[in-house]
Amino acid sequence: MSAIFKLSRQVEFNHCDAAGIVFYPRYFEMIAAVQERFFADALGASWAEMTPAGLGTPMGEITVRFSNPSRLGDMLDFALVVPRIGTASAGLDITCHSGGELRFSCNATVVYAAFDTGRSLPWPADLRTKLTEFLPEDRKKTA
Amino acid sequence: MSAIFKLSRQVEFNHCDAAGIVFYPRYFEMIAAVQERFFADALGASWAEMTPAGLGTPMGEITVRFSNPSRLGDMLDFALVVPRIGTASAGLDITCHSGGELRFSCNATVVYAAFDTGRSLPWPADLRTKLTEFLPEDRKKTA
Amino acid sequence: MSAIFKLSRQVEFNHCDAAGIVFYPRYFEMIAAVQERFFADALGASWAEMTPAGLGTPMGEITVRFSNPSRLGDMLDFALVVPRIGTASAGLDITCHSGGELRFSCNATVVYAAFDTGRSLPWPADLRTKLTEFLPEDRKKTA
Amino acid sequence: MSAIFKLSRQVEFNHCDAAGIVFYPRYFEMIAAVQERFFADALGASWAEMTPAGLGTPMGEITVRFSNPSRLGDMLDFALVVPRIGTASAGLDITCHSGGELRFSCNATVVYAAFDTGRSLPWPADLRTKLTEFLPEDRKKTA
Repeated sequence: MSAIFKLSRQVEFNHCDAAGIVFYPRYFEMIAAVQERFFADALGASWAEMTPAGLGTPMGEITVRFSNPSRLGDMLDFALVVPRIGTASAGLDITCHSGGELRFSCNATVVYAAFDTGRSLPWPADLRTKLTEFLPEDRKKTA
Repeated sequence: MSAIFKLSRQVEFNHCDAAGIVFYPRYFEMIAAVQERFFADALGASWAEMTPAGLGTPMGEITVRFSNPSRLGDMLDFALVVPRIGTASAGLDITCHSGGELRFSCNATVVYAAFDTGRSLPWPADLRTKLTEFLPEDRKKTA
Repeated sequence: MSAIFKLSRQVEFNHCDAAGIVFYPRYFEMIAAVQERFFADALGASWAEMTPAGLGTPMGEITVRFSNPSRLGDMLDFALVVPRIGTASAGLDITCHSGGELRFSCNATVVYAAFDTGRSLPWPADLRTKLTEFLPEDRKKTA
Repeated sequence: MSAIFKLSRQVEFNHCDAAGIVFYPRYFEMIAAVQERFFADALGASWAEMTPAGLGTPMGEITVRFSNPSRLGDMLDFALVVPRIGTASAGLDITCHSGGELRFSCNATVVYAAFDTGRSLPWPADLRTKLTEFLPEDRKKTA
């Protein structure tokens, strides 16, 4: 069965710009927070433990398509799945809805890497196994 | 002749994360600042004037590819060109280098729109003319 | 009886600096969020409704004393009381603890004001009544 | 003779809230940037060098009094002096004006400290000498 990681956040005053809508760079802070909670809560690989060990999951590439604006007080519902898992990287697809309306969709690729050398590293076996739970059902055979 | 809009910013302590490198959401604040200065300084269309008039240039879609990490004190050199101009939208290609090393490249599409209705609007003629200066030479004929 | 407004937030990666501890300007975003939820949830005066009406509660003065550093993953427990209520202003005393350890204490004064004129306004009667619930018991008589 | 450290910054879109004025937590990012440039440019003690060495100047206490709102595009002029120098701490008084109008004034106390132990340390002699240049003339004898 395929898992989806979910998280909700309310739009705060500090997210909004002079037009009264969420300023798009704030969405990237939220995306980073979704990624952070996903690794800590779903994969058991918290950045609090990884960072002092010199390990991390830096962003390789990210695309966001903005569909509708968000306003102060809106409850944002994030959903994350893992569309592909590479040797040392993984895709993260994140959608953000509010009241059923799509606000943005995001396709990202993160890399498992050592911060001192900047080198990518193969996913540890347990992390890979847990990532696989979030792979869509039809891709699990080829993962 | 084709113009390039340039801007430099130094990496500050508030941009850096616990790994001592720029936290990628901060790059989006910088991209927004480059876009803001481009509209104000190069196009004569400041957000300070547009926002009270109910006009804006919201982000439609953005892709960023991260190449190398940036550290505290690094001088970041941004360069912006306009790869395409649509009726109510425009592409913005932004690169960020430091000491000649590529840090990230960005392809964005912004829309000219009214904030109250959320509707896109055709670029005013003078704005379109100024945008055209930043179009690569080989695309000017078809713009 | 005297009420205390409480809220908890977990320290995220985006709050931490290169030394691995919360960068103090991030605390002010959290203080603003505590203030925002206090007005919306405890006083029934959400900024989402006040801002379009041209009303707000801008910060007049704020003092923060930092006691101990906070680290990634720490759960921060905020508690807010109202030490004094003026005609058009109010004090907000906020403490932040984690696991019982004081991280910072804050004394602020906010003003009830119209954004267009910048003028302060007397608190509406219902807002004043609700603010009074958060006044320490021994000050209620003189409020 | 007494020195004053000066820095100017323009208000950007990302600093402004839904009321169209600078959101006060953004001022604390600016204050941190003024402090960062003061240590790097005036004192020759950059955080880029101090942080990897495990040293820092964490904020002990800060008070800000807000006088007038700032708007998008405003040029903010910061001025910093050092009202007192202790064994392991120093006061920083910062004012922020725009077009001659006071926006806010700030009194802060920073501590010279080792991040690993959290212990304060006496200012090194050369840093103390440079800090003294920013002490008001009438306090230099007693410093």
